[in-house]
Amino acid sequence: MKKFAVITAGGSGSRMGKELPKQFLLLAGKPVLWHTLRAFQEAYPDIFFVLVIPAAHSAAGKVILNELNLTEQSVLVEGGATRFHSVQNGLQKVEAGSIVFVHDGVRCLVTPDLIRRCGVQAEALGSAIPAVASADSVRLADEAGGHLSVDRNRVRMIQTPQTFKSDIILPAFQQEYKDGFTDEATVVEAAGTPVFLIEGEYSNLKITRPVDLLVAETVLQERSGQ
Amino acid sequence: MKKFAVITAGGSGSRMGKELPKQFLLLAGKPVLWHTLRAFQEAYPDIFFVLVIPAAHSAAGKVILNELNLTEQSVLVEGGATRFHSVQNGLQKVEAGSIVFVHDGVRCLVTPDLIRRCGVQAEALGSAIPAVASADSVRLADEAGGHLSVDRNRVRMIQTPQTFKSDIILPAFQQEYKDGFTDEATVVEAAGTPVFLIEGEYSNLKITRPVDLLVAETVLQERSGQ
Repeated sequence: MKKFAVITAGGSGSRMGKELPKQFLLLAGKPVLWHTLRAFQEAYPDIFFVLVIPAAHSAAGKVILNELNLTEQSVLVEGGATRFHSVQNGLQKVEAGSIVFVHDGVRCLVTPDLIRRCGVQAEALGSAIPAVASADSVRLADEAGGHLSVDRNRVRMIQTPQTFKSDIILPAFQQEYKDGFTDEATVVEAAGTPVFLIEGEYSNLKITRPVDLLVAETVLQERSGQ
Repeated sequence: MKKFAVITAGGSGSRMGKELPKQFLLLAGKPVLWHTLRAFQEAYPDIFFVLVIPAAHSAAGKVILNELNLTEQSVLVEGGATRFHSVQNGLQKVEAGSIVFVHDGVRCLVTPDLIRRCGVQAEALGSAIPAVASADSVRLADEAGGHLSVDRNRVRMIQTPQTFKSDIILPAFQQEYKDGFTDEATVVEAAGTPVFLIEGEYSNLKITRPVDLLVAETVLQERSGQ
């Protein structure tokens, strides 16, 4: 089946304390987003990229796509007000009968192996949502200001690429937006389709804070030494 | 109030794929446990350490305590079958009228600042449980093999030092062990005392996987450069 990668690269980077958005910060000499795209290209050389990116950064996005020789197999789309709306915009470029990977542009340590495993499971089961166990105990806050311990064995930390057959994700995104739509899995579930988890990767982190960039640098060095 | 640090250093290290337990792996030239003890010593130079450690590793524990000139203000205690039983053993060395920090020996990036903030809050409110927000979406598995999305804003990732007034934690650990006792906060709550969270530190990670050691190395380098 044809593969589409909808990469969301719309973050403002405000949590990093730097002017440059997170997806353009340099990591091992290349922008964060370069590493992300490269992993998908390695997994599936003929995958088609839908890069969801603010207009103000489209030129930078094009430079990265060009550097990876992806100009012919990519399209740029403007982001929306929320992740839901950004992905909704991106999905307009996706063809029927395909497998769709929706991925955070700042999860640049994702491996081709995880991407391929997600693709295989989504073809077989309809979806693949990467998840890992939590190293920490977890509590849930309630509305009264209190909080309750939850059994750590029940906790799944959710990552991307959230991967679906197009005939599952495309109709799901026809719904009206609701506040609980924090990722694609919640949108698909709200449309009445259960989703299937898959073992994610502990190193598949999101670059959200300055320390994450250092961590990512370390992980890449370790990988290149192997 | 007098301060006691009950440091649990009983892990077998089996997840690291190395023979040496995690708390003795070298980080910036010193054992992981050295960094942990050093942070508490910096926070409170006269704090008393209760090091809960398997008998097989007590010699290594003593070497580290000696190197930090802590021999006179520390005691070694054997671990138990669970974290609850290990901490229960350690608490037998804690005096009434004190503040007790219970800390994972492998959380070696904890800062003196967090330790002091926990101490101040525990003196004022009775407890301080460090917690941070989750960068990832979270799901909870149910017994039927399914899983449900939870509102990420409600999720608190729990760390240590879990800090208490002695007159709260000591009686709580007189209870019989229950399976749900995954940390000290759950034990204290089961004894009928609510616990108070405090903002933790994103970098206060547990060394549980090989990549964590690399990450810790990077964070320490960054800190020493500041």
